[in-house]
Amino acid sequence: MLDRAGPDEDHGLFREAVRRFMEREVTPNLDQWEDDGVVSREVWRSAGEAGLLCPTITEPYGGLGLDFRYNAIVTEELCYTGAVVSFGLQSDITAPYILNYGSEEQKREYLPRMVSGELISAIAMTEPNGGSDLKNLRTDAKRDGDHYVINGAKTYITNGQLADIVLVACRTGGEGSRGISLILVHASDAGFSRGRNLDKIGQNMADTSELFFNDVRVPADRLLGEENRAFYYMMQDLPQERLTIAVGAQAVAQRAFDEAVRFTRERRAFGQAVFEFQNTRFVLAGLKAKLQAGWAHLDWAIDRHVRGEYSPEEAAAGKLFHTELQWEVVDAALQLHGGAGYMNEYLIARLWRDARVQRIYGGSSEIMKEVISRTL
Amino acid sequence: MLDRAGPDEDHGLFREAVRRFMEREVTPNLDQWEDDGVVSREVWRSAGEAGLLCPTITEPYGGLGLDFRYNAIVTEELCYTGAVVSFGLQSDITAPYILNYGSEEQKREYLPRMVSGELISAIAMTEPNGGSDLKNLRTDAKRDGDHYVINGAKTYITNGQLADIVLVACRTGGEGSRGISLILVHASDAGFSRGRNLDKIGQNMADTSELFFNDVRVPADRLLGEENRAFYYMMQDLPQERLTIAVGAQAVAQRAFDEAVRFTRERRAFGQAVFEFQNTRFVLAGLKAKLQAGWAHLDWAIDRHVRGEYSPEEAAAGKLFHTELQWEVVDAALQLHGGAGYMNEYLIARLWRDARVQRIYGGSSEIMKEVISRTL
Amino acid sequence: MLDRAGPDEDHGLFREAVRRFMEREVTPNLDQWEDDGVVSREVWRSAGEAGLLCPTITEPYGGLGLDFRYNAIVTEELCYTGAVVSFGLQSDITAPYILNYGSEEQKREYLPRMVSGELISAIAMTEPNGGSDLKNLRTDAKRDGDHYVINGAKTYITNGQLADIVLVACRTGGEGSRGISLILVHASDAGFSRGRNLDKIGQNMADTSELFFNDVRVPADRLLGEENRAFYYMMQDLPQERLTIAVGAQAVAQRAFDEAVRFTRERRAFGQAVFEFQNTRFVLAGLKAKLQAGWAHLDWAIDRHVRGEYSPEEAAAGKLFHTELQWEVVDAALQLHGGAGYMNEYLIARLWRDARVQRIYGGSSEIMKEVISRTL
Amino acid sequence: MLDRAGPDEDHGLFREAVRRFMEREVTPNLDQWEDDGVVSREVWRSAGEAGLLCPTITEPYGGLGLDFRYNAIVTEELCYTGAVVSFGLQSDITAPYILNYGSEEQKREYLPRMVSGELISAIAMTEPNGGSDLKNLRTDAKRDGDHYVINGAKTYITNGQLADIVLVACRTGGEGSRGISLILVHASDAGFSRGRNLDKIGQNMADTSELFFNDVRVPADRLLGEENRAFYYMMQDLPQERLTIAVGAQAVAQRAFDEAVRFTRERRAFGQAVFEFQNTRFVLAGLKAKLQAGWAHLDWAIDRHVRGEYSPEEAAAGKLFHTELQWEVVDAALQLHGGAGYMNEYLIARLWRDARVQRIYGGSSEIMKEVISRTL
Repeated sequence: MLDRAGPDEDHGLFREAVRRFMEREVTPNLDQWEDDGVVSREVWRSAGEAGLLCPTITEPYGGLGLDFRYNAIVTEELCYTGAVVSFGLQSDITAPYILNYGSEEQKREYLPRMVSGELISAIAMTEPNGGSDLKNLRTDAKRDGDHYVINGAKTYITNGQLADIVLVACRTGGEGSRGISLILVHASDAGFSRGRNLDKIGQNMADTSELFFNDVRVPADRLLGEENRAFYYMMQDLPQERLTIAVGAQAVAQRAFDEAVRFTRERRAFGQAVFEFQNTRFVLAGLKAKLQAGWAHLDWAIDRHVRGEYSPEEAAAGKLFHTELQWEVVDAALQLHGGAGYMNEYLIARLWRDARVQRIYGGSSEIMKEVISRTL
Repeated sequence: MLDRAGPDEDHGLFREAVRRFMEREVTPNLDQWEDDGVVSREVWRSAGEAGLLCPTITEPYGGLGLDFRYNAIVTEELCYTGAVVSFGLQSDITAPYILNYGSEEQKREYLPRMVSGELISAIAMTEPNGGSDLKNLRTDAKRDGDHYVINGAKTYITNGQLADIVLVACRTGGEGSRGISLILVHASDAGFSRGRNLDKIGQNMADTSELFFNDVRVPADRLLGEENRAFYYMMQDLPQERLTIAVGAQAVAQRAFDEAVRFTRERRAFGQAVFEFQNTRFVLAGLKAKLQAGWAHLDWAIDRHVRGEYSPEEAAAGKLFHTELQWEVVDAALQLHGGAGYMNEYLIARLWRDARVQRIYGGSSEIMKEVISRTL
Repeated sequence: MLDRAGPDEDHGLFREAVRRFMEREVTPNLDQWEDDGVVSREVWRSAGEAGLLCPTITEPYGGLGLDFRYNAIVTEELCYTGAVVSFGLQSDITAPYILNYGSEEQKREYLPRMVSGELISAIAMTEPNGGSDLKNLRTDAKRDGDHYVINGAKTYITNGQLADIVLVACRTGGEGSRGISLILVHASDAGFSRGRNLDKIGQNMADTSELFFNDVRVPADRLLGEENRAFYYMMQDLPQERLTIAVGAQAVAQRAFDEAVRFTRERRAFGQAVFEFQNTRFVLAGLKAKLQAGWAHLDWAIDRHVRGEYSPEEAAAGKLFHTELQWEVVDAALQLHGGAGYMNEYLIARLWRDARVQRIYGGSSEIMKEVISRTL
Repeated sequence: MLDRAGPDEDHGLFREAVRRFMEREVTPNLDQWEDDGVVSREVWRSAGEAGLLCPTITEPYGGLGLDFRYNAIVTEELCYTGAVVSFGLQSDITAPYILNYGSEEQKREYLPRMVSGELISAIAMTEPNGGSDLKNLRTDAKRDGDHYVINGAKTYITNGQLADIVLVACRTGGEGSRGISLILVHASDAGFSRGRNLDKIGQNMADTSELFFNDVRVPADRLLGEENRAFYYMMQDLPQERLTIAVGAQAVAQRAFDEAVRFTRERRAFGQAVFEFQNTRFVLAGLKAKLQAGWAHLDWAIDRHVRGEYSPEEAAAGKLFHTELQWEVVDAALQLHGGAGYMNEYLIARLWRDARVQRIYGGSSEIMKEVISRTL
């Protein structure tokens, strides 16, 4: 169990409720979702009912208007269970885009159903062969009267199988990063199709897909915010997106650590608990020291973000630090499991497989270093 | 392609033949075997026909009586394809046990068919909860007249689904490591059963299972060598077993490196090939330096083993060095693939998943350090 | 310049004053002190006058009765200059011992002069061959009427050359850690002598010596606190001692980082500033991320300590984390200096030499892991 | 004692003689040389008499015409003592330059006295601010009739205080690396002067200096080889130079390891030898595995070099591997010494300080990666 105190009593009560939700609605379904390669729509609906989705969305649009600490609590408790459910994508990325840049009509149309979990969203930036280089984005949205006509393909899209709406980064202007817009595509739009659920090393329950846009014709008011401003919007949102990844990374690292302590205390070898070997204790102690620093940093980062002071380079540093720490912890924790660690029936195996992509997506460790170095 | 020169022309010709075999019989079937969770019996038969199995077994028993360098060539070329087929288990572990400790009858009964690939073997030491601690081995073989009656369970047994014969480590004497014997169990013996094919992080084509022994009654002449001497036999064989793992580790590391060079040369980001970034080049250069040291060490180790001088602690050091190097290389190579590296359709993803257990089985890195430290 | 905000305005003003003190009294003298192998008594006196010594000592004994954040500010600013002056030893260790455990007479006799810098103190625990194992402490204090007679030797004693008083850990009771007392020895006591100033890898300005006690006869009221309770006292003080080391470690790490940024921006190679190479930027960015986590952790730890909540195991984790981080940063920063980094005329060379012992003294990294592991 | 077998009996006998020389002429003088900041001229003379200098120089010029394995033996045995004497600079770099590119007159003039140790040489490439970037070399040699007139400055020159002759890299042609020549300057030439012996982190006995050339007028036949070909010559020599550094790195690493084993076996803590702690044994075992790989690689590299097959990129990889390994070993070995490791009176402290520059000079680790990456 995560030993975390909220900054005040309300956060503590919320955490308790979230934790009970996870025990009831998430933990019992993990294996099924993993086999299915996707979570159920039901868990989205029940999370919405329980008030776990989009806590920062303001009341006129169905939300509670809370601060980001509540989002972080959901992410922590969710990830600590070992689940990979993209609530954070909706709460911390897509809904805020609509809240911050959408028209009043868009907010009224989408946000209440995103809060309730009826509507599941995705955001589509990466393209085949293009990686995270937005300058070379090729998916094209041509203005045609009162419509846009979208053509192109996206890949590695989280919620690719489940999503009802997709925020699609499209080229609407000239070359480079300044000619990109975000357009809302409905899964029901003609010409939109999903590729197969991608076969990944881990995060199997997080459906990830290619998406295809073949003459998808959408009304012009599906444009989010202003034309050709999407790059700017995305840059604004990055600190929060990367903070969410960092929150999850730290929580999973803690879970992997806790699993290793428990396993090595139970498992015996050569006449004693594996935990009693000095090597085991030293490995765990070294990790514990880093986890302590990690939690302190995470709380600092969350506070700073809530105050609006968490800068893009700080967020890059945070994403780098926590995902690298997560990796160090899960890998060492697996090793302490011995042969059992390689068996998928043990949670540590899943945590380990799921963790590997954290150093890659949301901006790889290399990209994070680029971002940080620009401000030195 | 592995750029390796054999020590002399014969080895070079053999390597060429092995490589053609891999291209023809192995590489085209990798995906199928991976899906099946087991390789075909046919590849064992064709490997036998091609002379790839048990090269060191002497001619009276159907083998070619070659030196261990030939075994190493098979392992290198096999592992470089990305396959995980346990030819090495048969060639370097089980067949030598029978050759070295078996009776003339046992040699005549089993070896020719092991050389031909008709007979697939396994060796069963690890027990549930027991790990690699032979002192606490519990599988019991009670002498009953001219028979042994075996009861117990084994786990993590490679070839568990395919094996026709299993060398089972059983307790026949008192406590500790001195009361253990190796007994040959046939898959057809009454009371023998296989558990399910274990669901692992990787090495999916290498079937791995629990094995159950429920009053398995076998004739006393199934005992391999002398009673209660198995611990000694196993200690004798460890250097070769660990050398085989080291050979495979180095070959896979080279393959992962080659994949990363190729991928980063082809993939473009931010206007240039990913390879051109200094970070990419520096990461690859650092790995290249270690691979160079690795190949030099491997050749030294193989030569030393062929001369009968490769000691248990040297073999432990070699296993530790090469498997840790393999891990460092595969993990860095995956990172250089970016998001593609997380997709199972790319070879690097499989190499990476398959690699993780190398630091665990055959004596974990921690056990290797124990072994090495005893001779300092 | 350290970019640090105090928690409130008073701390900020204090930091400003401390920084000016360092610029005026410390930085200009570093080379001289380094050559002398010891700092001047004058800097102690002027630090006392400026209110930098023992800020937490209460007003009746000449101090300001401030909180530990002020001590931390002095340590940060001092260490950031590259100086190694043991103000922290007096402010955070020896004076608190006397304040917490001393008699009213002892407090009145020693504390005001420790605050003013007239009196320089040391604490003597480690013994030749004994390391940090207090159970085997051999320096003996025999009660003889109203006196103790002390015999023994200590080593690695900071302030060994300058100290006017020494808190000596002596055996007064039976075996083990429960028979140890702290006794105040004056440098003027007959039978007390100092060994030579030890020749160390770094920290040359921090005089470090062996101390010899040859029938040193002191009045019984030199006992600090109760007899045989010293182990308990020392355990109580450890979190603060280790926090002080952590504070210095983080400050030096930041200085080394800043030096590397400055040097690589100025130094050109192969037609560009060394900073412009991707490798340089990536190395620095990786360090920056860890420094960010380090500062967040440090502030958390200081706050927690001020609230009386910083536990021994948290302090061990903090000491481990910050000193290992310091090492990683200074070593990478030196490498980025190229050949210049190996020349003692560059500050980075001194920072690097000085840093190495931080992972060893005050409880080595290995001891820290032992401490942490006991509470897992 | 280094446990090394030569490839044949002659090498073994030579090693024995070298080892006796070190015990007699080197080990007893280490502390004195370290204090002096320079070795004695006598040790050069006696090394020459003992046949340790320039073994590969052919007989017409006073040498023995042996293979490079003999040079490696001298370097191994010398470095294993903890000495830093630049015999290798003369035997493996400057003498081969003269042998390979010098005129018959030059060979007759210099080589016999270099073999005998009467003449001590240096090579001067690096310039203040210029680092190892030969393209920007500024030291100028203007042809003036039958003379060159040299002006400029060099820095970080090994043997700077002792050298009788200096091979100076000068600009004689146009810009870039193709306009550089090597010119032999005598220490007695007017206008040549030495700066102070540089104050370094370590390698104190290896005098290192700036050299100044102020209208140094030398006859035109002091040119080594052809004009403007020096860059080519230097490239040719790099593999041997870098191999020599690798040889020394491996030998020092072995010595540091041996010191740590000895120290931890003798030193007791918490009731047992420090060696007995699992952490100590695991650290040492991990190093031992890498040292084993290192020796195997080194022998491979030496053999390959003797056969003329050791390529520049292989030599760069070797230098990188062995100097990084040296660092890992000396740093871990120091840590295992605890507080003693920080005291200069312990050999490990000197080995550690001396080692740090190995990752920097002779081409830094970063340069090595550049070189390696060019051939991937």
